[in-house]
Amino acid sequence: MPIGLPKTPRLEAVPGVKLGTANAGISKAERDDVALITCPASTAVAAVFTNNLFSAAPVTVAKQHLSKCSPQALFINSGNANAATGVRGIQDAESVCERVAQELGLEKSAVLPFSTGVIGSRLPLSSMLKAIPECMHALSVDNWLAAAKAMMTTDTVPKGVSRRFTLGNANITLTGIAKGSGMIRPQMATMLGFVAMDAAVTRPVLQLLLRRAVSKSFNRITIDGDTSTNDACVLLATGQAEMEAIQHESDQRFAELERNIEQLFVELAQSLVRDGEGATKFVTIEVVGAATDGDAQGLAFAVAHSPLVKTALFASDPNWGRILAVIGRAGLDRLEINKVDVYVNDVAFVVNGERADTYTEESGQAVMAPEEIHLKICLGSGNARGLVWTTDLSYDYVKINAEYRS
Amino acid sequence: MPIGLPKTPRLEAVPGVKLGTANAGISKAERDDVALITCPASTAVAAVFTNNLFSAAPVTVAKQHLSKCSPQALFINSGNANAATGVRGIQDAESVCERVAQELGLEKSAVLPFSTGVIGSRLPLSSMLKAIPECMHALSVDNWLAAAKAMMTTDTVPKGVSRRFTLGNANITLTGIAKGSGMIRPQMATMLGFVAMDAAVTRPVLQLLLRRAVSKSFNRITIDGDTSTNDACVLLATGQAEMEAIQHESDQRFAELERNIEQLFVELAQSLVRDGEGATKFVTIEVVGAATDGDAQGLAFAVAHSPLVKTALFASDPNWGRILAVIGRAGLDRLEINKVDVYVNDVAFVVNGERADTYTEESGQAVMAPEEIHLKICLGSGNARGLVWTTDLSYDYVKINAEYRS
Repeated sequence: MPIGLPKTPRLEAVPGVKLGTANAGISKAERDDVALITCPASTAVAAVFTNNLFSAAPVTVAKQHLSKCSPQALFINSGNANAATGVRGIQDAESVCERVAQELGLEKSAVLPFSTGVIGSRLPLSSMLKAIPECMHALSVDNWLAAAKAMMTTDTVPKGVSRRFTLGNANITLTGIAKGSGMIRPQMATMLGFVAMDAAVTRPVLQLLLRRAVSKSFNRITIDGDTSTNDACVLLATGQAEMEAIQHESDQRFAELERNIEQLFVELAQSLVRDGEGATKFVTIEVVGAATDGDAQGLAFAVAHSPLVKTALFASDPNWGRILAVIGRAGLDRLEINKVDVYVNDVAFVVNGERADTYTEESGQAVMAPEEIHLKICLGSGNARGLVWTTDLSYDYVKINAEYRS
Repeated sequence: MPIGLPKTPRLEAVPGVKLGTANAGISKAERDDVALITCPASTAVAAVFTNNLFSAAPVTVAKQHLSKCSPQALFINSGNANAATGVRGIQDAESVCERVAQELGLEKSAVLPFSTGVIGSRLPLSSMLKAIPECMHALSVDNWLAAAKAMMTTDTVPKGVSRRFTLGNANITLTGIAKGSGMIRPQMATMLGFVAMDAAVTRPVLQLLLRRAVSKSFNRITIDGDTSTNDACVLLATGQAEMEAIQHESDQRFAELERNIEQLFVELAQSLVRDGEGATKFVTIEVVGAATDGDAQGLAFAVAHSPLVKTALFASDPNWGRILAVIGRAGLDRLEINKVDVYVNDVAFVVNGERADTYTEESGQAVMAPEEIHLKICLGSGNARGLVWTTDLSYDYVKINAEYRS
């Protein structure tokens, strides 16, 4: 069960953005598994992709198309990642784009493909092509939830967030959806995330906003440390709100826009962790007092990836020795072990590298019991901070991933 | 159940080395949990220790004592790691050494302490001190198995190996014991390993032999990627065999000695993996054709640590896409994805970065079914090789580590 997430997010329409879904029979489940998202020609589009060198065919094709023209359609499928499929995988992704472009009267390169699911199988092309007209007929500004559902693989709930805010005199709607709950350690983006708003922003500014928001959100989450081959995150700005376009970072509306985008991205990224495979805990790992940013963020990820810390979290076991063991082996540039403090919420577990005098097993157990836990490591070696959101490691993580293809 | 290990290893006495065990009541189980190992004054001693910066008190004390004189006694306890225990932990370890030294009529620094178990609790000093005379009375050359049992924590079987060989005209006996099945990713040594022989070797040569053997054995295994705070490995050479001491690497007997030591260390290291927490598979991960040694060994470890690869191994699922995903995110210096081949035993899964034409799901499933699996990754980028032995990730790994302290 996801931790602190609604079963159904309430998602606001973004003027100009339409979505339609269909069942192409890719996954065994009887549900829609392809989604089409369209936006007007005025739309600025920014995107970031996985840095996994075994990137999937749709990632390669989407990058090529982005370099040619500004996209007006995104086509997404779940159930099959179209990764490690070689030249034929590229051709399949191009074929999908071509058919979507024909139906919509666009250039092929105005369509971006996205896939998520099992790696190493060819797309079921004919059934996917057949589903495209159905997606088109379903196009509606009110289909954000349906699109979020069509992207799901091992996700247990559709994930999405909306915000409304003003920029100057303009009322802006910002809505995003995302999927992913395993093979999650994004390094540029999440598995799949699509965010749109009606604000008017030039493409370079939009790309800056996306890059910064991703670095503070999707690039700070990890479920199992495995970076996907298909990570992609797209931010659309349709420009249909009544405002002059923001053309520069120095525009006084920029900060307000950035704050709202960042908050939505953080909420969306956290929602992936809250629905992480087998997750019973939502854990914030904060590192302060590190000598360098690399030490801070590196240690936060090392703790988040430790199977021993993760199983202790699953057991609600205040086994803080395992945290110290990770700190000691994390390869930090600077570590003075007698300056290390470890807190969970407001309970000091470790002070100056040893068990805190005030610590009791009872206080430790009590603070480890809730579903949401804040673990703070103070290194006392500098001023750098790191932050990661993660999950525990449960029987169900093993079960889900042992049975994924069966 | 351990994979391909006897319930009880057959261990040969090493002339001059005596062992005695007792129950000090440290762990809840009704079994011996402390062990004393003694050796004659003639013995050369080499040792390597964890590079975890949060090293345990016994590691600190053992290093100090080694710098002062040549050890004649090792005192080992299981159930409590005496780690993250600060100055008092150091004092406790010194107290144990002092009492052992008194009983044996030695200098305190001729005794080395070793501990393994839960991190962060003080040693139960008085009951440990009481158990020392009992260990002394039990001292016998035939107690290798008893000592291997006394070191166990989550180990399900005692682990040890003996070899006999000749060096010139001398008959040599080499016997080693080791413990450890979780928090295993040694980086200088294993959790605890003690190996002795009656060969005559000078200390510098012995240290060289130990360092090389460890690099090819314990430093190539990983169960969960977590390096222990207490790793230590000791090699004793009593010199009681009828031979002139080997004083230099150029001695013509050196190669034969090194070969035997390395083979015993590999077998001992593999035995830890075979009894790894929750292990149902013993997996050899071989990387060939890498551009650099760092790429080769780094990739082997990255694959070995991937929760997705490990759960697929548990399920005997030939989900090779997960292996490619790790290769793509492993941060290799050089990677040409269209040159990558992946084999399991003799079955080609991936050729030139795509599913092999000859691959079938049936052949993949058949080759993944056995308990012992050889996974080979060919990068085609150079000549460097890497090798790691590891386990899968099972329900029982989660169970053992969620319940470790309860």
